[in-house]
Amino acid sequence: MSEYMKPFQRRLASFQKARQSLLCVGLDPDIERIPSFLLARYEPAEAISVFCREIIEATAPFASAYKPNLAFFEMFGPPGLEALADVIRSVGGRAIVVADAKRGDIGNTSRFYAHAVFDDLKADSITVSPYMGHDSVTPFLEFADRGVFVLARTSNTGAADFQERIIDGEPLYLHVVREVVRWDASHPGAAGLVAGATSPEALARIRRNAASMPILIPGVGAQGGDIDEVMAAADARPGLVLINSSRQILYASQDEDYARRAADVAASLAESMKPIEAG
Amino acid sequence: MSEYMKPFQRRLASFQKARQSLLCVGLDPDIERIPSFLLARYEPAEAISVFCREIIEATAPFASAYKPNLAFFEMFGPPGLEALADVIRSVGGRAIVVADAKRGDIGNTSRFYAHAVFDDLKADSITVSPYMGHDSVTPFLEFADRGVFVLARTSNTGAADFQERIIDGEPLYLHVVREVVRWDASHPGAAGLVAGATSPEALARIRRNAASMPILIPGVGAQGGDIDEVMAAADARPGLVLINSSRQILYASQDEDYARRAADVAASLAESMKPIEAG
Repeated sequence: MSEYMKPFQRRLASFQKARQSLLCVGLDPDIERIPSFLLARYEPAEAISVFCREIIEATAPFASAYKPNLAFFEMFGPPGLEALADVIRSVGGRAIVVADAKRGDIGNTSRFYAHAVFDDLKADSITVSPYMGHDSVTPFLEFADRGVFVLARTSNTGAADFQERIIDGEPLYLHVVREVVRWDASHPGAAGLVAGATSPEALARIRRNAASMPILIPGVGAQGGDIDEVMAAADARPGLVLINSSRQILYASQDEDYARRAADVAASLAESMKPIEAG
Repeated sequence: MSEYMKPFQRRLASFQKARQSLLCVGLDPDIERIPSFLLARYEPAEAISVFCREIIEATAPFASAYKPNLAFFEMFGPPGLEALADVIRSVGGRAIVVADAKRGDIGNTSRFYAHAVFDDLKADSITVSPYMGHDSVTPFLEFADRGVFVLARTSNTGAADFQERIIDGEPLYLHVVREVVRWDASHPGAAGLVAGATSPEALARIRRNAASMPILIPGVGAQGGDIDEVMAAADARPGLVLINSSRQILYASQDEDYARRAADVAASLAESMKPIEAG
């Protein structure tokens, strides 16, 4: 594959080739679902930090990315933010970190979110919402070596409420894709898209309109999306696709062996998510 | 006015009647714009906390609400979150607190954001993004005594990118308004809308489609919206309208008198934003 890639995408591709895996491990540490013995041993924010760091150590051979969702950390206030920083640090450059934040505000404000996530937390990439338009997204794209995954067609049931509405014969999410492709062309950072595994048809349409853009795909496993269908729809070459799995990996066991069991699930998922090399 | 109001809206109306002001003071403490002597005296997160608390003390007689934007606090990591909690506490029930967060995620995750903002930070209300649809917004509406301002037509230039796109003859933002009115009808919390002062025409259309819903209106002053036009378009009765001003108040002076000067501006704005009583 000779097409031009921005630095973020090259880095993503190199991890995916090295691991032979498109797996992104979603770090959504729900206090009601993590092994209860951790809560007996630690304060809540420390418990989710220990939990995530153990999951990362165990699954690192199989993951090309980790995606902490900020909500699960912010709910613990300042100690939760400390836990998030510890978790991101513990990835230690072994994989891409996607800060799942779904931010988006007027330009003046998005700049501060970008600073918080890219400079302070040192995440490689972020998820953002497109609803407020170009000036809410482009401040993130000013960061030359980072990635910005813009929500296009999400995996939840509410995705149908607005994203599927038809404008000039095409759903809103495709209009979002076209705008993001335009913004990407004139900014140093790498734009990407979020397209849920729950709608392979939407995923295929998005790929046709953004042939060389990385797509982050949530919604396999617990949310019902099928991996083979997703791989076929998304053109699963290195640097082009990240397939996220969270709950299936995180909650594989409630016992002391939770990290080892998570690694087993991650290994098996990675096996089914090998990147396709261009012929 | 005899129409039914949810608890959040009644509380908002009572502050607005007592103060005779629809003014919401936006707390966007930009480290590069606050008086520099504060930065010489305090660490950055403490400086913005002191700054906001002084502004609140000085402007309290004129404000029915305060709207801290989370980005300006989160950029300082854990100490920034401590500052935000201090600032919200310092309002001390003298006005409504709107956490300007523009959150929105799958239902499972939105619940955690709602917990963080309503239970931990104890904000009275929040701003959320509608892009992901009903299950991303309704977890916030489960909180019976709180308010949820959903972005409809924002005040920034990027608002035109998607919010103005025409679906079945009407702009996307009006479809958002109709859905929010439906969600509001079946949930205990009070749904509201965000409609920028920069488009009085959109504001008037939104009011016609959501006659009894509170509308948070950013974008007067620095962003260019005209107060008189906004008041006319929005049906400015108590409990129905919040008009936000941030920079004009916050940065009225760079000197030791900044809080007093902020109060002068707030007083003058409040004078031009008296609620209209139903005849």
